[in-house]
Amino acid sequence: MRYELYYWPSIQGRGEFIRLALEDAGADYVDVARRSRGMEAMIKILENKSRAQPFAPPFLRAGRLLIGQTANILHYLGPRIGLAPRGEPARLWLHQLQLTIADWLVEVHDTHHPIGAGLYYEQQKKEAKRRSLDFRRHRLPKFLHYFERVLREEKRITYVHLSLFQMVEGLRYAFPRTMHRLEPKYPKLIETHDRVAERPRLAAYLASKRRIAFNREGIFRHYPELDAG
Amino acid sequence: MRYELYYWPSIQGRGEFIRLALEDAGADYVDVARRSRGMEAMIKILENKSRAQPFAPPFLRAGRLLIGQTANILHYLGPRIGLAPRGEPARLWLHQLQLTIADWLVEVHDTHHPIGAGLYYEQQKKEAKRRSLDFRRHRLPKFLHYFERVLREEKRITYVHLSLFQMVEGLRYAFPRTMHRLEPKYPKLIETHDRVAERPRLAAYLASKRRIAFNREGIFRHYPELDAG
Repeated sequence: MRYELYYWPSIQGRGEFIRLALEDAGADYVDVARRSRGMEAMIKILENKSRAQPFAPPFLRAGRLLIGQTANILHYLGPRIGLAPRGEPARLWLHQLQLTIADWLVEVHDTHHPIGAGLYYEQQKKEAKRRSLDFRRHRLPKFLHYFERVLREEKRITYVHLSLFQMVEGLRYAFPRTMHRLEPKYPKLIETHDRVAERPRLAAYLASKRRIAFNREGIFRHYPELDAG
Repeated sequence: MRYELYYWPSIQGRGEFIRLALEDAGADYVDVARRSRGMEAMIKILENKSRAQPFAPPFLRAGRLLIGQTANILHYLGPRIGLAPRGEPARLWLHQLQLTIADWLVEVHDTHHPIGAGLYYEQQKKEAKRRSLDFRRHRLPKFLHYFERVLREEKRITYVHLSLFQMVEGLRYAFPRTMHRLEPKYPKLIETHDRVAERPRLAAYLASKRRIAFNREGIFRHYPELDAG
């Protein structure tokens, strides 16, 4: 089956968690909005008033299905592309982990946008400094600690491992000083990151133009003042 | 099967979305942490170092399964307790809606805690006012509008309808002025709320002592200053 991924074409964002899974699996997919007139196609779906649509990108077309919400898409794709077992207990467990990553990602986003997603960073810089401090001191270690523990039991690579790779990549970009200090405490997480990065199809993807660079429009953003103090 | 729900005993919080489903279905369940020594049992699971556990309450024990993340629990329970169809397309659609409700709920929480969940409200009151203003003006109407549209197509009551009932209840408690002004624009949502409230088992639950009252420890909190301006 050829999958159609719909997501903003100029950022990694939430779509990247799906791109990583599709790329690692060598799945047949189109990153629709990065093609000519693809943004129009995406907006047309979102604004289709004749029937209810997903709330926001990313969403995935798989045959007749249109699936929204990143973790839901990975839950669907996992067993189909060899990145999750087929049994329900294992799928529920992985999905729970992915939903916890989703919660973590919201907190990363809110470090630079604690007041409103519709406002510029500069309009909430003071609040962003306070929130980032709280995130770096309390929340970030809590999530890192949790997944370090989880990874002790997960031997086989799944879409959750790919997502954890992405979290480490993004956090290194956004908070290099903090991550430099914290990483030695979480060897299993870093080992997983490295192991994922070496997978042949993923390594090829990361070196290709299909991998969009981190930038200040995405979820992970580097503002030095949010990584200090 | 007797389900065991684990959640904080003094708030509605995220656990309430599961309580509503179990109660409406007339399911056999125990609200463990509200029983004698139940908090100890819950903490013991969370702190069990011998194997990985859910990140946080709520979680549900169903036979040998221990399932975390509210939306994941409802995804599991839905078809088993008659609150979701069994087919995968319908389940994926409902789950996506539930995950959008989860996103919405985080934004509600962050109106009073925009800087850090570990800080008191009073320590972030100024930021909370700014975030609440943005939420009431931009985000709240966006979510209400989305679900108003969705409900036009959903005839049969599912766990998503119960969750939308809870969102309306909570928002009325937290933002009475704002909701008074906005509600007339979303008749389908209010009709759904009322229809859910009248379901016999749910009405009995809501009138019972099992229904914890809204309070200033939960996710929905009423601070008049966050509902004005």
